[in-house]
Amino acid sequence: MSLLIKNGTVVTAVDQYVGDVLIEGERIATIGSSLSMPVDRTIDASGKLVLPGGIDVHTHLDMPFGGTTSADDFESGTIAAAFGGTTSIVDFAIQYKGQTLHHAWETWMHKAEGKAAIDYGFHMIITDLTDQVELEMDALVGQGVTSFKLFMAYPGVFMLDDASIFKALLRTGKNGGTICMHAENGGVIDVLVKKALAEGKTAPKYHALTRPVRAEAEATHRAIALAEMADVPIYIVHLSAAEALEMVTEARDRGLPAYAETCPQYLFLSDDNYEEPGFDGAKYVMSPPLRPAATQDRLWRGLAFNDLQAISTDHCPFCMKEQKSMGHGDFSKIPNGAPGIETRMSLVYDGGVRTGRISLNRFVELTSTSPAKIFGLFPRKGTIAPGSDADIVIFDPEKTTTLSVHSLHMKVDYNPYEGRQVTGVTETVISRGRVVIDNGRFVGRAGAGAFIKRSARW
Amino acid sequence: MSLLIKNGTVVTAVDQYVGDVLIEGERIATIGSSLSMPVDRTIDASGKLVLPGGIDVHTHLDMPFGGTTSADDFESGTIAAAFGGTTSIVDFAIQYKGQTLHHAWETWMHKAEGKAAIDYGFHMIITDLTDQVELEMDALVGQGVTSFKLFMAYPGVFMLDDASIFKALLRTGKNGGTICMHAENGGVIDVLVKKALAEGKTAPKYHALTRPVRAEAEATHRAIALAEMADVPIYIVHLSAAEALEMVTEARDRGLPAYAETCPQYLFLSDDNYEEPGFDGAKYVMSPPLRPAATQDRLWRGLAFNDLQAISTDHCPFCMKEQKSMGHGDFSKIPNGAPGIETRMSLVYDGGVRTGRISLNRFVELTSTSPAKIFGLFPRKGTIAPGSDADIVIFDPEKTTTLSVHSLHMKVDYNPYEGRQVTGVTETVISRGRVVIDNGRFVGRAGAGAFIKRSARW
Amino acid sequence: MSLLIKNGTVVTAVDQYVGDVLIEGERIATIGSSLSMPVDRTIDASGKLVLPGGIDVHTHLDMPFGGTTSADDFESGTIAAAFGGTTSIVDFAIQYKGQTLHHAWETWMHKAEGKAAIDYGFHMIITDLTDQVELEMDALVGQGVTSFKLFMAYPGVFMLDDASIFKALLRTGKNGGTICMHAENGGVIDVLVKKALAEGKTAPKYHALTRPVRAEAEATHRAIALAEMADVPIYIVHLSAAEALEMVTEARDRGLPAYAETCPQYLFLSDDNYEEPGFDGAKYVMSPPLRPAATQDRLWRGLAFNDLQAISTDHCPFCMKEQKSMGHGDFSKIPNGAPGIETRMSLVYDGGVRTGRISLNRFVELTSTSPAKIFGLFPRKGTIAPGSDADIVIFDPEKTTTLSVHSLHMKVDYNPYEGRQVTGVTETVISRGRVVIDNGRFVGRAGAGAFIKRSARW
Amino acid sequence: MSLLIKNGTVVTAVDQYVGDVLIEGERIATIGSSLSMPVDRTIDASGKLVLPGGIDVHTHLDMPFGGTTSADDFESGTIAAAFGGTTSIVDFAIQYKGQTLHHAWETWMHKAEGKAAIDYGFHMIITDLTDQVELEMDALVGQGVTSFKLFMAYPGVFMLDDASIFKALLRTGKNGGTICMHAENGGVIDVLVKKALAEGKTAPKYHALTRPVRAEAEATHRAIALAEMADVPIYIVHLSAAEALEMVTEARDRGLPAYAETCPQYLFLSDDNYEEPGFDGAKYVMSPPLRPAATQDRLWRGLAFNDLQAISTDHCPFCMKEQKSMGHGDFSKIPNGAPGIETRMSLVYDGGVRTGRISLNRFVELTSTSPAKIFGLFPRKGTIAPGSDADIVIFDPEKTTTLSVHSLHMKVDYNPYEGRQVTGVTETVISRGRVVIDNGRFVGRAGAGAFIKRSARW
Repeated sequence: MSLLIKNGTVVTAVDQYVGDVLIEGERIATIGSSLSMPVDRTIDASGKLVLPGGIDVHTHLDMPFGGTTSADDFESGTIAAAFGGTTSIVDFAIQYKGQTLHHAWETWMHKAEGKAAIDYGFHMIITDLTDQVELEMDALVGQGVTSFKLFMAYPGVFMLDDASIFKALLRTGKNGGTICMHAENGGVIDVLVKKALAEGKTAPKYHALTRPVRAEAEATHRAIALAEMADVPIYIVHLSAAEALEMVTEARDRGLPAYAETCPQYLFLSDDNYEEPGFDGAKYVMSPPLRPAATQDRLWRGLAFNDLQAISTDHCPFCMKEQKSMGHGDFSKIPNGAPGIETRMSLVYDGGVRTGRISLNRFVELTSTSPAKIFGLFPRKGTIAPGSDADIVIFDPEKTTTLSVHSLHMKVDYNPYEGRQVTGVTETVISRGRVVIDNGRFVGRAGAGAFIKRSARW
Repeated sequence: MSLLIKNGTVVTAVDQYVGDVLIEGERIATIGSSLSMPVDRTIDASGKLVLPGGIDVHTHLDMPFGGTTSADDFESGTIAAAFGGTTSIVDFAIQYKGQTLHHAWETWMHKAEGKAAIDYGFHMIITDLTDQVELEMDALVGQGVTSFKLFMAYPGVFMLDDASIFKALLRTGKNGGTICMHAENGGVIDVLVKKALAEGKTAPKYHALTRPVRAEAEATHRAIALAEMADVPIYIVHLSAAEALEMVTEARDRGLPAYAETCPQYLFLSDDNYEEPGFDGAKYVMSPPLRPAATQDRLWRGLAFNDLQAISTDHCPFCMKEQKSMGHGDFSKIPNGAPGIETRMSLVYDGGVRTGRISLNRFVELTSTSPAKIFGLFPRKGTIAPGSDADIVIFDPEKTTTLSVHSLHMKVDYNPYEGRQVTGVTETVISRGRVVIDNGRFVGRAGAGAFIKRSARW
Repeated sequence: MSLLIKNGTVVTAVDQYVGDVLIEGERIATIGSSLSMPVDRTIDASGKLVLPGGIDVHTHLDMPFGGTTSADDFESGTIAAAFGGTTSIVDFAIQYKGQTLHHAWETWMHKAEGKAAIDYGFHMIITDLTDQVELEMDALVGQGVTSFKLFMAYPGVFMLDDASIFKALLRTGKNGGTICMHAENGGVIDVLVKKALAEGKTAPKYHALTRPVRAEAEATHRAIALAEMADVPIYIVHLSAAEALEMVTEARDRGLPAYAETCPQYLFLSDDNYEEPGFDGAKYVMSPPLRPAATQDRLWRGLAFNDLQAISTDHCPFCMKEQKSMGHGDFSKIPNGAPGIETRMSLVYDGGVRTGRISLNRFVELTSTSPAKIFGLFPRKGTIAPGSDADIVIFDPEKTTTLSVHSLHMKVDYNPYEGRQVTGVTETVISRGRVVIDNGRFVGRAGAGAFIKRSARW
Repeated sequence: MSLLIKNGTVVTAVDQYVGDVLIEGERIATIGSSLSMPVDRTIDASGKLVLPGGIDVHTHLDMPFGGTTSADDFESGTIAAAFGGTTSIVDFAIQYKGQTLHHAWETWMHKAEGKAAIDYGFHMIITDLTDQVELEMDALVGQGVTSFKLFMAYPGVFMLDDASIFKALLRTGKNGGTICMHAENGGVIDVLVKKALAEGKTAPKYHALTRPVRAEAEATHRAIALAEMADVPIYIVHLSAAEALEMVTEARDRGLPAYAETCPQYLFLSDDNYEEPGFDGAKYVMSPPLRPAATQDRLWRGLAFNDLQAISTDHCPFCMKEQKSMGHGDFSKIPNGAPGIETRMSLVYDGGVRTGRISLNRFVELTSTSPAKIFGLFPRKGTIAPGSDADIVIFDPEKTTTLSVHSLHMKVDYNPYEGRQVTGVTETVISRGRVVIDNGRFVGRAGAGAFIKRSARW
């Protein structure tokens, strides 16, 4: 099977040129100024951008949380991702206390199998770090699960103490894995949540008010300090606060390999959303919470100046009906999370590239190349170059659409950006050489996506 | 009883003038350019400095630690303090797990009673924070124990988790107490200590190598962040690392009421001392450990520019024989601490004032006025002004002496500064109107010192 | 002549106690808890604060500027100062190009002689630095004119180039003088002013818009860098911008002896004032200009944390009628300056101490002690201690007054704080033992003030 | 003419893959995994790196300086550049006072014509900024001279005052040009040089001692501040001091478009070199001077973390004989500059990539892609992509050579790196499709290089 994309504006993290891309089988074979050879199909991309497929390294599909399960499974979630121009995800497998990592991995492999329409990998969430688990970490790295997520929040559930975090970090110094950190001070937050509830403060907005920016900044600083002492890199997930970003900036100014991602919700929404009428604030209950609107500029600056290296979604959808509603009268019972897997590329293009906050190259870097490099997917994924997987998005930079729960494909009954107009729309998506979205229609297949065995840092 | 000190150079944290000081009973009555009235005794202080008595807010007398007890009790310790120009100490009472604060207070009051030769107060170390203990905190503030020390190190022994620390901080926001923090990341240190021992690294120097500067800096940053979220001041004890000082500097640049003390050992000794032959490195096993010599300049800068507000001693002496020696073959068993209560004033005068690093006024501020203000002793202690306690030191700024275990009065079999020459010597000491050191001889009385009921922050 | 002030609350930069102060002749003789001796006059200060007289180290009396002269001469200006609780000023003598420093000094000595009601000193403004002038600098230091002001603004008039500034700084490294700097980048401002006028932007507010905060910050940074290379201290006058303060803060964090003052106008007014109707914005035309209101908090923080060491007035009054009005139709012709010599102490007490932004001790330090120490007036001025000049203010901390051109004594036809209520009023003022303001009435004498021969830095 | 490079490891600023590159005429036509088509020549690059040709944006060929002329003209200089793997240079044309920019441009175009073996562009040095010259700036931007260099050093010769600098910056805000800045405080340096000479300090090392790091840091800060006020980007040339880099880092942390280059001499040499015997220190007399060896790590960190965006050479060779020797007995008469155009790529590869300080991608970015983007050469130069100029270097990453004046091709009688072994050698060089270095032999032609009309910022 061969496929020729003609006359598009090919954009990578560094280049931009009008040219043709020839795909043979699952790989990119040739790139040229004017290729002409017999192929199975030719797509005319004149006036369109030809981009490396989006890579979303933070999703939670089919994830149990607080007595319910995130609304998208690997089928609906990956199809929605493809619609949005994302061709690879890295989801999270969860070790529950007392269980092995292997069990967690098998469980999540099983969740994805036969369902995923695009390629997928896993980070492993460790909640119980024993000597045996440390050995399992080494094994997983060999099997392509080369990153581990730890929590500094949710005491009693996910939170690890500093000694365990430090041990896990030291381990990655030996096995080449990478630690991802949920950086919020769970001890402080717990005290504040109990205090708020005791004072009768139960509305959704208290979710945000009990998770202060300093709690995130402190944990971010601590995570980086622990990594520094272990002499390994660290990756902060879903960074939301300007104060936390300062910690990353300072660390990088000191020459430390500290990395961080932020998410579209922190770039386009704010804590004003918690003031929406009735229980609607629950739509935005996620951790970390939305921050003051002034934060957005600081985050864009971090993205432009490479203090933030990636934009992922933390896609973790719960329906307002039956799920978010569990927290009526007690914000601490609202499942944490919001949908986003489908809207990332258009939001960031519209709000980042079109406004001049980031260049087109940087857009590609943040949504694809840089996460690919950090998480061992590169050069297989994350670029358009001979030999790389043919994960390609044909993107119409001039087309405008309106984001709405009615037209989007995620299985959740609301959208945080409802009614927002964006210019820049995914038109056609190719996953390892197969067209999965063809001019806006899904033509792929559940189960066609494959597990990605990722590389370690060396 | 009246006492007239004539013709001395009176120095406070701001003033310096040649004048006379009249003491009536326990208090300073009058200060003037040339007082002449009938008095019980006149002391000629021509050519001498007349200083507010030193205040040492960090001592550990008669303290159980690791199966032994610090070598000075309240009698020998306070007499040594007086010899060195210190007229007030604030020692630490320890709540052991499961005990009440009240019990700890009574225990330590009993230790001091009938023994102390100078006035004394107590900080309360909290190791077990229950709701009941929070109530006791309020009560203690009312009884003049207005500060509480918490540990971020020594997991399983003294360490509190962040939630407990945060609760204690919040409590001081209500009762006006002040939290003092031992800021080192105990979780990290524990892992490093076990790792070192497992690798056969047992010599005293590994005590320092397993307590990295970043572990102190991280905890310092975290302590300040927790206090910021609780909206209360915080006081970092025995700050030793330049990296930790940076955290205080940054916090103060942001306008936070973050305070810190350092100790003479961090100003005059360094990690080179751990290289002394045989087991002699054990003399310097204290926490935090001695740091690289380059740190000293940074600390002096912090003292000069008020990022550090006090110099205390962390006096916690253990004899080499029978005590330090418990750690032969396992540095983690060496009792932590070193003597210093007697040498503080001369060391700081010699190394600070005479070298031009700090002014004479700043010397008074750091060793007396500022700790008095922070810990609720002012204006009773910490200055020379009408109405204040007559705690006064007559100090010979030109006299030179050699520090040695043979001539000093602390009950410990070595001195960390053995052989060091210092210029600037305490000559005569007055404690609440009574002469306790008279021209170098102790003429006071064990038990004459009184418990100081300290004020809360408001 | 002897004078006893009874039962006041004596406050210095460090102490606060209820006591009595005995003045004999021009000096403070004795301070005590309850003095009783025969004296010429006794003043009951019960319920009042007894403060060191205010010291204003930045005034421009009888100063030619742009074809006119500042509205207060040494008589009206110093009487107004006394009314406001200030007992010493340091004014500026100006060397004009081609003239000697000696000529400037004589000129200004002549202006003050027979007129000043309180003590006064001079800084010397250097506008033309030749080898001969460098020699004169040394001579002036010996004569008690120990500080020199240089301008980085006003090219062609006052501005010195960096080479000359650096030479002057090097010179103070030899003679012990201190350089005061007007830190604004005059080159940039000149370009902006010409551009604005060319664009028809002539209203008073364009004065502010053509003097950006970054122009002040840059010059502040440069001044400190030049002083660092010359290895001498530096004192930044009338610091107004948060961005400039950052430069001082960073320098002090690095351990440099960088000092700065701010003025009440920057603490209580803002660039909103330029929006006042008609030509009223001209009232606030001064250099640097008023800044955004958010700046005020940053300046108060700088004052509280000692990144700013003094509050002076930059008193330089011009009447709206006939003086400010010269700039109708061309903001660059509005004489720069505003009145303030009389209102400083009440404004800072009311807005600083009563709001809790600074302590009472810090109030004394900022308005008296610290400028006295920096500029060689201490211990003669700036404290209440035996042997010091009896420059004392009895201040009613509870009395409220309304600031108004109608009741104030400065010879200018408007007041920038018109109608503002302040609590904290100067009641009685003593200058070198003589009562000059007695319960709100001027009882002093023009010409009674004496030239203060100030000390060099060593 | 067509040329196929087979089986090399193609490296761009983001990609790295084994592949083939087809050149047709002057451009890159096709890139693929295994291309096979009839071509005029095939080069086997197995085991070699295929890199975008180096771009050196800071050279001084055939430049008059202090009564002599830099030793390489456009023929010898560009041939040496090609030997070293550089395919484009941007040299400096100099406006002398009273002359037009046009005259300067013509003069330098004439110098290059018929001589340059590789492509070349020009920055325009402005030393005399009149209204007429501002108009000429606009014209030059249209003609492809889109950057201007200004000096903050060399008063009386090259130095512009701040007002002129600010005007030039404002102008680039309108015409899309870019200002390059030599950032050293010339006023301070001049005073120090005169002082040193007056004190008989005449040896080469005093060149360094009279150009303190703070003079560079200050000017760097000022340059950025002026650009910030003008709201335009700025590019600092030959940044040498850690303290100056801090200024760039802080500016970028604040989101300013501040850019800077450093040079190999600052990465590999240090002020220790001034201690070489006799007059040999003169070899290293350049401005800014070499800095303490500890600086090197800070610069590498800046390169790795993108606070520095380019490595150029400041190639400005003067022979020891007859040229450098002019400064015997007076360091200020030593012509400033050193050779480097030929050794850049090998030094940076060896000292940067092989040591792990920077990645291979970053090596390409720093030596080619990033300067191309900043100075309007991209995408014509600076990458390997369809449509780009075929400026390509085939580089042997494993070959070792010894740098020596005897084997290098620059026309100067010494080499600063004499005897240094480096691994990583340029083997074959292609300039716009023509092979100019063929396996280490020059096969190009003087005059084959063309003037590059560069783009403005928009």
